[in-house]
Amino acid sequence: MSAPTDMAGRPVAVIGAGLVGSGWAIVFARAGFAVRVFDQNAATLAAFGQAVGDSLADLQRFGLVDDPAAIAARMSVAGSLAEAVDGVAYVQESVFERVDVKCALYEQLDAVLGPETIVGSSSSGIPASAFTEGLASRSRCLIAHPVNPPYLVPVVELVPAPWTDAAAVAATRSLMQAVGQVPVTLTREVQGFVLNRLQGALLREAWALFDEGYCSAQDIDNTVCHGLGLRWSFMGPFETIDLNAPAGVRDYAERLGGLYLDIVRSRADPQPWGDALVGRVEAERRGRLPLSGLPGRCRWRDQRLMALAAHKRAMAEETGE
Amino acid sequence: MSAPTDMAGRPVAVIGAGLVGSGWAIVFARAGFAVRVFDQNAATLAAFGQAVGDSLADLQRFGLVDDPAAIAARMSVAGSLAEAVDGVAYVQESVFERVDVKCALYEQLDAVLGPETIVGSSSSGIPASAFTEGLASRSRCLIAHPVNPPYLVPVVELVPAPWTDAAAVAATRSLMQAVGQVPVTLTREVQGFVLNRLQGALLREAWALFDEGYCSAQDIDNTVCHGLGLRWSFMGPFETIDLNAPAGVRDYAERLGGLYLDIVRSRADPQPWGDALVGRVEAERRGRLPLSGLPGRCRWRDQRLMALAAHKRAMAEETGE
Repeated sequence: MSAPTDMAGRPVAVIGAGLVGSGWAIVFARAGFAVRVFDQNAATLAAFGQAVGDSLADLQRFGLVDDPAAIAARMSVAGSLAEAVDGVAYVQESVFERVDVKCALYEQLDAVLGPETIVGSSSSGIPASAFTEGLASRSRCLIAHPVNPPYLVPVVELVPAPWTDAAAVAATRSLMQAVGQVPVTLTREVQGFVLNRLQGALLREAWALFDEGYCSAQDIDNTVCHGLGLRWSFMGPFETIDLNAPAGVRDYAERLGGLYLDIVRSRADPQPWGDALVGRVEAERRGRLPLSGLPGRCRWRDQRLMALAAHKRAMAEETGE
Repeated sequence: MSAPTDMAGRPVAVIGAGLVGSGWAIVFARAGFAVRVFDQNAATLAAFGQAVGDSLADLQRFGLVDDPAAIAARMSVAGSLAEAVDGVAYVQESVFERVDVKCALYEQLDAVLGPETIVGSSSSGIPASAFTEGLASRSRCLIAHPVNPPYLVPVVELVPAPWTDAAAVAATRSLMQAVGQVPVTLTREVQGFVLNRLQGALLREAWALFDEGYCSAQDIDNTVCHGLGLRWSFMGPFETIDLNAPAGVRDYAERLGGLYLDIVRSRADPQPWGDALVGRVEAERRGRLPLSGLPGRCRWRDQRLMALAAHKRAMAEETGE
């Protein structure tokens, strides 16, 4: 892993020091970058060090980092936005996801940004065109949407606004690869980007099957976590079908394209996740896990993600993937 | 794991000794059942022992079975269909997936089946109602659809025909749990069952995003195998969203239901996987992996599945899941 030439050796800034921002700080510092952190909320900034320390301790416990102290030592808290971005090659913005909040921050950023600094936004839904149009720096702004936490789930979606320079996208892609993330590059904006569109398509079918009484929510979950999701944890949907017919993806499409078209056509009328329907899934979920158990189960999920990351790293080393 | 009382100690029959049937033989024999195997094609039956031996050796190498010889010793090849099913509690049928082939076999089966024997079909697409309607044994016939190979991917979809007894479904569910599979029970037939409907929904969005030029097939694959698919390898889509909002699934639906409805509405007009479109994905895939590389990559996939199964077993033992 090596950073793009013009970014190597220069610090990066993380603006917004909450859950997402602190995750990004770990990603960059783990890869050797000096990270300057800033948040306009003093309480968030005060909690940042503890949050990062806890995450790094977990990562060390699962063999995913060697020297937490050295990683933490690369992070510094900046006294102002201007100080945070001074001389940095890249800014990862992770402030609260609301258009007015983004607009206000980007106006301030625009005034203090160096002439070559690129800004990636962690926005999961708002496109960059909604908050960068009027900026002098708009050609260097794009979406760099992570999954939480980014130091365990490496995919990051890069989505340019209509005015984003291709060079800014390419440089961000190189940087993300250099820090161990897996960038996915979109050619233009689309609602939900790629990840949530794929998730949304599967969820739509899951809700409909449950709604129509075909099976329980638990059985739908089991179909994924003891079936479909196993392959998808190490190869994507196209590779999966490419390997599922003797002569590859065309062979598969010829055999099963008709079935899949019929399935999709049977879902021609999208319905909202209605209140009564949500209530029925909620009742089943709360029967398995009371609301008070959610935080503990989230810790279980994070530990499973860590163990899976360690497993995938070992596999990659073994098979040279 | 213990088998349903009336099935414990009695052999099971595996009819159809190809890839799917030999996988099932391993599942049942691994759990301690005597397995009688039959195939009307002598060449398939002749190759069965070698295929099972190879798979068992792989499983041993990954620490997934202790004593391959003892497992293989529980399997026997029957000289006829009647001999195979004589006195068995359960038949797993895995013959070629074509209605006329299934119909011909079930007619023969019907004539030799014991009065309480249940028959589960490995059919991935044809519903049981299409080949069991006229049978005396039809109330004991259902679909028991595995994912390949069933000894590594535990989900099995149980789908009753309109005339299948609830008791036959319940007994099959118990048997599948007893042999370490994860049964998913549908209340009635639906095209594609659950697993392929969920896969089809995600594939539909994947093909559309690629077709519209948003990103490469490889980047769509990366979005899944370095993103969405990580969580889905140990928890399903409902549990995923239940843990992704502070107050659970209702909270999540209130925050994001609108976005997901918009996404689904933007896909109102299902298109076939057209020839030109398939050609473009095929060209990208073949650029990464020539046709001659497919068999090797399939072995890689199977080894990754084995390593993942070993990882998940270790996690389950550690966390008591």
